[in-house]
Amino acid sequence: MRAGLICLALTILATASAHADDLQKLSQDPKQWVMAAHDYANTRFSPLDQINTSNVGKLQVAWMFSVGTRRGQEAAPLIVDDTMYVVSSYPNKVFALDPVSGDLKWTYIPYQDRAAQGVACCDVVTRGIAYDDGKIFLATLDNHIVALDAKTGREQWSTKTGDINLGETTTDAPLVVKGKVFVGISGGELGVRGRITVLDENSGKIDYVAYSTGPDKDVKIGPDFKPFYDFMKGQNLGETTWPPDAWKIGGGTVWGWFSYDPSLNLVYYGTANPGPWNANQRPGDNLWTSTVFARDPDSGEAHWAYQLNPHDLWDHDEIQENVLLDLDIGGKTRKVLVHPGRNGYMYVIDRQTGEVISADPYDTVNAYKGVDLKSGRIIPNKDLEPDLGRMVRDVCPASPGAKDWQPSAWSPRTKLLYVPHQHLCMNFKTSDVGYIAGTPYVGATVDMFAGPGGYRGEFMAWDPVQRKKVWSIKENMPVWSGALVTAGDVAFYGTMDRWFKAVDAKDGKVLWQFHTGSGIIAQPVTYQGADGVQYVAVLTGVGGWPGVVANAQVDPRVRNGALGFTGATQDLPTYTQGGGELLVFAIPKPAQAAGGQPAQPK
Amino acid sequence: MRAGLICLALTILATASAHADDLQKLSQDPKQWVMAAHDYANTRFSPLDQINTSNVGKLQVAWMFSVGTRRGQEAAPLIVDDTMYVVSSYPNKVFALDPVSGDLKWTYIPYQDRAAQGVACCDVVTRGIAYDDGKIFLATLDNHIVALDAKTGREQWSTKTGDINLGETTTDAPLVVKGKVFVGISGGELGVRGRITVLDENSGKIDYVAYSTGPDKDVKIGPDFKPFYDFMKGQNLGETTWPPDAWKIGGGTVWGWFSYDPSLNLVYYGTANPGPWNANQRPGDNLWTSTVFARDPDSGEAHWAYQLNPHDLWDHDEIQENVLLDLDIGGKTRKVLVHPGRNGYMYVIDRQTGEVISADPYDTVNAYKGVDLKSGRIIPNKDLEPDLGRMVRDVCPASPGAKDWQPSAWSPRTKLLYVPHQHLCMNFKTSDVGYIAGTPYVGATVDMFAGPGGYRGEFMAWDPVQRKKVWSIKENMPVWSGALVTAGDVAFYGTMDRWFKAVDAKDGKVLWQFHTGSGIIAQPVTYQGADGVQYVAVLTGVGGWPGVVANAQVDPRVRNGALGFTGATQDLPTYTQGGGELLVFAIPKPAQAAGGQPAQPK
Repeated sequence: MRAGLICLALTILATASAHADDLQKLSQDPKQWVMAAHDYANTRFSPLDQINTSNVGKLQVAWMFSVGTRRGQEAAPLIVDDTMYVVSSYPNKVFALDPVSGDLKWTYIPYQDRAAQGVACCDVVTRGIAYDDGKIFLATLDNHIVALDAKTGREQWSTKTGDINLGETTTDAPLVVKGKVFVGISGGELGVRGRITVLDENSGKIDYVAYSTGPDKDVKIGPDFKPFYDFMKGQNLGETTWPPDAWKIGGGTVWGWFSYDPSLNLVYYGTANPGPWNANQRPGDNLWTSTVFARDPDSGEAHWAYQLNPHDLWDHDEIQENVLLDLDIGGKTRKVLVHPGRNGYMYVIDRQTGEVISADPYDTVNAYKGVDLKSGRIIPNKDLEPDLGRMVRDVCPASPGAKDWQPSAWSPRTKLLYVPHQHLCMNFKTSDVGYIAGTPYVGATVDMFAGPGGYRGEFMAWDPVQRKKVWSIKENMPVWSGALVTAGDVAFYGTMDRWFKAVDAKDGKVLWQFHTGSGIIAQPVTYQGADGVQYVAVLTGVGGWPGVVANAQVDPRVRNGALGFTGATQDLPTYTQGGGELLVFAIPKPAQAAGGQPAQPK
Repeated sequence: MRAGLICLALTILATASAHADDLQKLSQDPKQWVMAAHDYANTRFSPLDQINTSNVGKLQVAWMFSVGTRRGQEAAPLIVDDTMYVVSSYPNKVFALDPVSGDLKWTYIPYQDRAAQGVACCDVVTRGIAYDDGKIFLATLDNHIVALDAKTGREQWSTKTGDINLGETTTDAPLVVKGKVFVGISGGELGVRGRITVLDENSGKIDYVAYSTGPDKDVKIGPDFKPFYDFMKGQNLGETTWPPDAWKIGGGTVWGWFSYDPSLNLVYYGTANPGPWNANQRPGDNLWTSTVFARDPDSGEAHWAYQLNPHDLWDHDEIQENVLLDLDIGGKTRKVLVHPGRNGYMYVIDRQTGEVISADPYDTVNAYKGVDLKSGRIIPNKDLEPDLGRMVRDVCPASPGAKDWQPSAWSPRTKLLYVPHQHLCMNFKTSDVGYIAGTPYVGATVDMFAGPGGYRGEFMAWDPVQRKKVWSIKENMPVWSGALVTAGDVAFYGTMDRWFKAVDAKDGKVLWQFHTGSGIIAQPVTYQGADGVQYVAVLTGVGGWPGVVANAQVDPRVRNGALGFTGATQDLPTYTQGGGELLVFAIPKPAQAAGGQPAQPK
């Protein structure tokens, strides 16, 4: 009875705080995890420290939950008030669970157009759900943004924001800023025109759409727009840096991460590669693909943009996380965003102006020769320029880049960024391709393989001030999971070959690892339960672009399957199958661990 | 290096023992688990006692493995030599794993006719694989018996033993006896003619087929056949106790358990219900449906048979396990088989003669008034006899019986049988039905619900000598998992609502329970690893007849879905989704549990 009363009191308090509509504040409660990236700055840092470097070796599975799908699970669970929310890969079931006992509270299974599965380029993943003000926001693969009552799971509204007949799907985790739901669109390999859609959280009404290509009015470039570098200055560059009409099917999709700086009132996100991959078909810089945008969330107007890869040759999207940090650089505090580029460079960018402060390679890079900080332009390696039908060999990084969607974590204690990423090179050949709505629009054949040293992935700690790698753990497979770091100075990540690992955030020493059922490509989170115990939770279930060879009917013998990724992960099925199991870890209570008094079953 | 050498030595020893072709002997090695039911007697008793009543509360998940399917997982893992073998639900993938580390050694994925999924009446389960002499034997849903090299997973032979176009599927675990692979056939609700098929383990050639219905030569009834009771004496009763030709589509399928007594050289198994469920269409006893057979494994000739449910009215198959025990009854040792009847009676039968020694209700029974031990005939309750179109209400047990396929365990220490079972009653109405090959042939509408007391399942300990229930645990859901009991006096079972439980075998006190990801309907096993540690393994993944409402597209609002079972488990989706995760439990080593020295990762 006592415990029940305490629970009730906590619920009332937490609900009140949620209704204060201050997600920023809620994200600072160390017990909760209220958005996929933990906070608006995308740090994935938890102030919890019950689990630390000296006791993490005692972690055990406390409970688990099967989401009932077996395709790639990339999502982060959310923990809000006394409830955990979990979303599965297609058909994007949403579950509400008790974060301590694992009991199921409610289930929501959206009706979806099954054809969405055939349209998704690279597995039928979702990267998460969002929460605000008593509602859970789900983006379905078939492009419906759905609001659910967080207490009951009842649908509040559902708004269609894309069309699978045009190759559009939705895979990113929405972010709520000031009562507006931000969501992107996927389908860069199917000629989709990239954009963000912003909806009112209460009504589901679309507030505005901001495109990644096309005339300035579509891109929401107006008087407020002040890019730092000259090559992005001019009228309607989203149209004029393309052949006629090519921008309409030119990609620049948005399927990664949003971050938000309340003090500057700017939302940040990156856009994907231009399409098709055959760059001969789209002479020009192809703005605003492979670009980081800073926008006013209220109006949607762009304040600045920075194109990382003008006229991208290699499918180097730049949708990765932008981690918002205040760093001491050159004797003064700079408001920066750190963006681990798919192109292999770690960018530190002034988030007020778009100025690139530094850009240093963090993996093997020969596709480029560096970033010219004066012009802001990346310098392509002319020796490796692809031409129609000519095979270009040993290009690094490969198409998935040195890093794809898998998000980093930042610890304010160690001042290090923990970066899960891959280490792959490729042979690359282009071909002419025609556009047919809703079908692949690629024009390249790719064969990927392990980069120098023979390993395919790495989990590393990067110092963005010293501009250097501090330590790294080489992994056999691409590290496709997110990272988590805590005030206990423990960093967590998962591997595609079925390990969940805890490492010392200071030196990268592996302190604990657990052999999971399926490989991990999801985002670990941590929270404190109503029982006062710190838990660590992660979805297992291999998949994603590198993992369809293990969870879908992709023949591992065909090296250029899955847009070329199969070549690099042919052996994945010798480690794992697909899955869909949420694992929740904790250190067993002493009474239980020491035996004598067995745990009291419910 | 040292560990490697020890492993190698063990492998050589164990391989030698396997090649001795003495599965009986191999099954007595406490470290292994070489057939689904543990041994030929079907005891599911392990002599291991490292895990016992005083320390079982310390069990934790050691490692897990996802089988990559999310339909019902009913199979038992096998542990032979230094390898664990696991089989998934359709498409019946087979995995070889390291029993200590969980590393994957090889994978075999059969090509199957996808239409098999549509033919299977009650989820696409398999109940297990078999091992003998360096080979793993797999029965696929689409009726192929496949032999795999246990070391490499390479296919040795594949023999088709049934036809999905006739509604035939294969779901039982094969058993190898004297170099012959015994396997049954499923499809009693689709007019399949029941039989066993016996194949040579080296060539895959079919040695013989013994039918459950039809003329004596088909049933392999000849001069050796000596039934104990008069009603089963006569010529061609498998034909004459049916309307003309009705036996050809009359069921009596075989999808449960085989046991074997080497000293008597007899194989035992039970047959399923007669079809269709509408009994008006098949006047007569309908031999040899709902019957236990004792056969010579070499010739296949029947030595005796005992029909439990002549002219079955309720879908009361009798395919359950026959546990072979030597019991002190009435002052002398009797060689018996204990058969927990689907009809709700616990049968103790002389396994040499087929004489029923006792038959006592172990659950609520009103469909029958008892078993006449003189005639051997069960006594139907005439008040509840169904007639065409008339709804008969509150019949107990319901169609799945008091117990279905889920196998019991027997401890020679406690002399108790541990029985997982359900507790359901029903309303039942028949209708005329015509036969169309490969489609449902049922002729009844069933609405099932919890029996008296409102609970739907029970895990109980039964004393077959005292003929009474010693203790029981009532469960909210049908207990559809198998049972395991050990020399540590711990019994294990799983629940459909996501609990894996360890109970004191003496008094039924729950000592430990773990909240799994999906519900459990599989068979727990235990073994000792090369590291000297006792492990307990079980597949999770709810499903089976009562579980399709949670893992397939069965609408929980339609009470008579899934042949009427949906009504009884409508709320299952509020507890669990489907899954497919093998969980392996162990007590953490003291160094790890006590902390200080973290576990050394590999």
